[in-house]
Amino acid sequence: MKLIIVGGVAGGASAAARARRLSEDAEIVVIERGPDVSFANCGLPYHIGEVIPDRAKLLVTTADRLRERFNLDVRANSEVVSIDRKKKVVVIHDLKSGKSYEEPYDKIILAPGAAPIRPAIPGADLPHVYTLRNLVDTDRIKQAVDGGIRQAVIVGAGFIGLELAENFIHRGIATTVIEHSPQVLGPFDPEMVAPIATAVVKMGVELLLGQSAEAIVATADGMTIRLSSGRECLAQLVVLGIGVRSENHLATEAGLEVGPRGGIRVNEFLQTSDADIYAVGDAIETTDFTTSVRTQVPLAGPANRQGRIAADNVFGRQSKYRGTQGTAILGFFDHTVAMTGSSEKTLKRLGKNYRKVYVHPAHHAGYYPGAVGMTLKLLFDPQTGKLLGAQGVGGAGVDKRIDVLAVAIQAGMTVFDLEEMELCYAPQFGSAKDPVNMAGFVAAGLVRGDHPQTDWETIAAAPDSAFLLDVRTELEFNNGHIPGALNIPVDSLRGRLAELPRDRPIVAYCQVGQRGYLATRILMQSGFNVSNLGGGYKTYLLHHPELL
Amino acid sequence: MKLIIVGGVAGGASAAARARRLSEDAEIVVIERGPDVSFANCGLPYHIGEVIPDRAKLLVTTADRLRERFNLDVRANSEVVSIDRKKKVVVIHDLKSGKSYEEPYDKIILAPGAAPIRPAIPGADLPHVYTLRNLVDTDRIKQAVDGGIRQAVIVGAGFIGLELAENFIHRGIATTVIEHSPQVLGPFDPEMVAPIATAVVKMGVELLLGQSAEAIVATADGMTIRLSSGRECLAQLVVLGIGVRSENHLATEAGLEVGPRGGIRVNEFLQTSDADIYAVGDAIETTDFTTSVRTQVPLAGPANRQGRIAADNVFGRQSKYRGTQGTAILGFFDHTVAMTGSSEKTLKRLGKNYRKVYVHPAHHAGYYPGAVGMTLKLLFDPQTGKLLGAQGVGGAGVDKRIDVLAVAIQAGMTVFDLEEMELCYAPQFGSAKDPVNMAGFVAAGLVRGDHPQTDWETIAAAPDSAFLLDVRTELEFNNGHIPGALNIPVDSLRGRLAELPRDRPIVAYCQVGQRGYLATRILMQSGFNVSNLGGGYKTYLLHHPELL
Repeated sequence: MKLIIVGGVAGGASAAARARRLSEDAEIVVIERGPDVSFANCGLPYHIGEVIPDRAKLLVTTADRLRERFNLDVRANSEVVSIDRKKKVVVIHDLKSGKSYEEPYDKIILAPGAAPIRPAIPGADLPHVYTLRNLVDTDRIKQAVDGGIRQAVIVGAGFIGLELAENFIHRGIATTVIEHSPQVLGPFDPEMVAPIATAVVKMGVELLLGQSAEAIVATADGMTIRLSSGRECLAQLVVLGIGVRSENHLATEAGLEVGPRGGIRVNEFLQTSDADIYAVGDAIETTDFTTSVRTQVPLAGPANRQGRIAADNVFGRQSKYRGTQGTAILGFFDHTVAMTGSSEKTLKRLGKNYRKVYVHPAHHAGYYPGAVGMTLKLLFDPQTGKLLGAQGVGGAGVDKRIDVLAVAIQAGMTVFDLEEMELCYAPQFGSAKDPVNMAGFVAAGLVRGDHPQTDWETIAAAPDSAFLLDVRTELEFNNGHIPGALNIPVDSLRGRLAELPRDRPIVAYCQVGQRGYLATRILMQSGFNVSNLGGGYKTYLLHHPELL
Repeated sequence: MKLIIVGGVAGGASAAARARRLSEDAEIVVIERGPDVSFANCGLPYHIGEVIPDRAKLLVTTADRLRERFNLDVRANSEVVSIDRKKKVVVIHDLKSGKSYEEPYDKIILAPGAAPIRPAIPGADLPHVYTLRNLVDTDRIKQAVDGGIRQAVIVGAGFIGLELAENFIHRGIATTVIEHSPQVLGPFDPEMVAPIATAVVKMGVELLLGQSAEAIVATADGMTIRLSSGRECLAQLVVLGIGVRSENHLATEAGLEVGPRGGIRVNEFLQTSDADIYAVGDAIETTDFTTSVRTQVPLAGPANRQGRIAADNVFGRQSKYRGTQGTAILGFFDHTVAMTGSSEKTLKRLGKNYRKVYVHPAHHAGYYPGAVGMTLKLLFDPQTGKLLGAQGVGGAGVDKRIDVLAVAIQAGMTVFDLEEMELCYAPQFGSAKDPVNMAGFVAAGLVRGDHPQTDWETIAAAPDSAFLLDVRTELEFNNGHIPGALNIPVDSLRGRLAELPRDRPIVAYCQVGQRGYLATRILMQSGFNVSNLGGGYKTYLLHHPELL
């Protein structure tokens, strides 16, 4: 067996190590176009920020180590330029010598990754306009930063854009982030990332949402970036972080099938349209775990797992990839936002039937010092309660809850299962009713019909459709409330029913939904047409980030 | 409907709030023997340590709040002394007035909790010998500490004992912990809590394992505690934390069934042997989720969930309790130890078929600063790979992995499912191959037969049964190795096969098991009779805490 692996980073390196464990006899050749194999992609912005001062830490392993330990034939600075599927040879171009040669294969695993998109705007190819994909890019950007630049512009407020922004702030650089859409972090629902946008601004970043870069012009002192709004930004460094596209040219030139967005098409065994060629990682099209639609999700975790699975299949073990859930997380200073499964916007786009709840618990017992608030959003099937997606925003402990919910989605669990989860509780770590239990209680109550819920969007679309009842204290009400609401604190509600209309729907709300729930139960049992505002005033605020 | 709830803390308070949400009309009476309802049990040690300086924080809610918000008839300082099941009345003793009276009921929910065990040793009733269950106990202990005592003895190295020890250290008190068993934290497997015992000692606590307190004698300066070893300890304060027993006297006197260890027996609807009386919380016997045997697990999370479920059933909603997983966690300074599902010793005791693996990953990407090591232990069915239990010890991130594994156990997942989990990855939060994935890879490989594993216990029982091969570097080997092992670093193994015996079993090991796994694969494919030492040298160290 001669296996050629094209690409030696996440998926490729995993495939190579797995392949060797499965077979001591196989000839395993790893062809990597860049100078480094298996580096820590996700650490690159933090090296620029000197959070990871030692560059060597980014080298997960080296070509020498792979040779020694795994007896791999690793060829860095080498590019596979074509595949002759009839002759079963690849043509390899040695970037150092400039020579090309043929190498026969029995099987290929393609792990070429994805390349940052460079927009077709004037000036996108100027010398100090970068993308960030590998160590070479990192070195260039870091060199510019070390050289003492004062201003940087980041185009794109996605994961890499915001991670870079944090690290530019660490380095004392005046940073502007330009994002053409009206929200940061596109995969998330907009209200869930509103607190992140607020934090970005609070940390001193200039955040320009809903604006595109239209041209970059070299000046004496650096560059001017012209925006769609007419505005101009100055910078000595521009980083483009607007997304990636599958490195599919080798695959397409070899006649392998690709999807509409360019992802190399594979079956559940990660086999391309050629049974002897597998493909893994950011370059492929996979199946979305919750919706079963084809998708492209460039994430390190799936890439690594796919590498193992492809190697298994190459060596005759039938191993299936179950699809990608899209579990993703961003840390921005002390803030965390994470998601798993489908977003609300995806469910809407696909016309799926869903409902949602929000809870706003503390990350551990409120009576223990240091409790930090978070918001969790659950998306689920309104009939069965099956979980479809979850998002969380806050600080400490958000990663834990989204991991728990990722497993629940993987297991096909329902909101009723969340009610029963028995999670770690000591006051430093959680609560007797963990945030995940709380979200389960609210969602299960909704599915069971215990408490009708009205989402803010419904009221926003038809403000006069309901009578708004604020059941918080007078103090809370006076500190900010939804315009037009009547304030009756829940503790006096039972004695003040006469003040409420019986001829129109009432929507009750409190700060987070809990008192609103009790108010809803009280009013329901007194014959009112009532519902609880989903997630209470705190969710209302997420829809009104100017009030955050 | 008139519902009487006996006990107003975790399970009782949850039941009361739930009951009111289900019915505005019901008469709901909460009888609490102590002065406080719904206080934060799990915070008590931290108030003594002044980690939670404000006592008021421990009051989750008050009787007044419960009256106002939930329209409950709350009677504190009142004890239900008997139940007349024929007449359907309870007799309540008002501890303040000293008077008793009858109160009729339709349904009862018993939530009396569990009482600390006071051992029958001389001096256990001396004035400064305490147990810690409620705020009154807390006040007494804190008063003694505030009074400037110098030495304290804690009898019992369970959760409360170690939490108190941490807080006594915070207060500058010379603290001795006495534990009759040879390990701390009885529910855990001994090797998994060895690092905690080490940490306890390192933080300045005198830890006396395998010793019992036999007598407490008052002296001029406090007390002398005489131990089974003949040793004597001095203290001005003794706290007994050797366990709890169900507060079942009301139930037994009413003729309700109890289990052999005294837990009130309930069915899956939490109904006692009297259909009109439910019971929840620390006082009851429940079913172990993984083994289905009857058990008694005093934990706040289950108590709260049981309160909800009992209230549901009282109001005609069929709601089942699924059993208790025994998810538990202890924080001790920066150290964390947590578990879920069955321990190895429980599986052994029940004669269950199981296997185990250990992994020793960092809690997040090693290349990002601040990564802390942890050990995860998985217990699973050797044929199906179904998860039976998990334990983790380390610092940050242990709670997250045990929560993830708790959900996996709840969902009936296998070690193969752990391989596929898609968890949050950014370098501050995890790794592309999360610790849970890693544990899954190792366990799944074992079930698949990819790498035979030998557990340390097998070698300890028959040291000459195998040839020990240390595949770490020479430096690692010289820093400490298993006596009798031969050192051949994995990177030179392929060239040194001639040095290995073909006539006896070889057990390979490295630091954590990963290089040992590769060595096992290399040797297997070269025809050797080889296995990998489960968890490597780090697991060996857990079995040799004197080397930690």
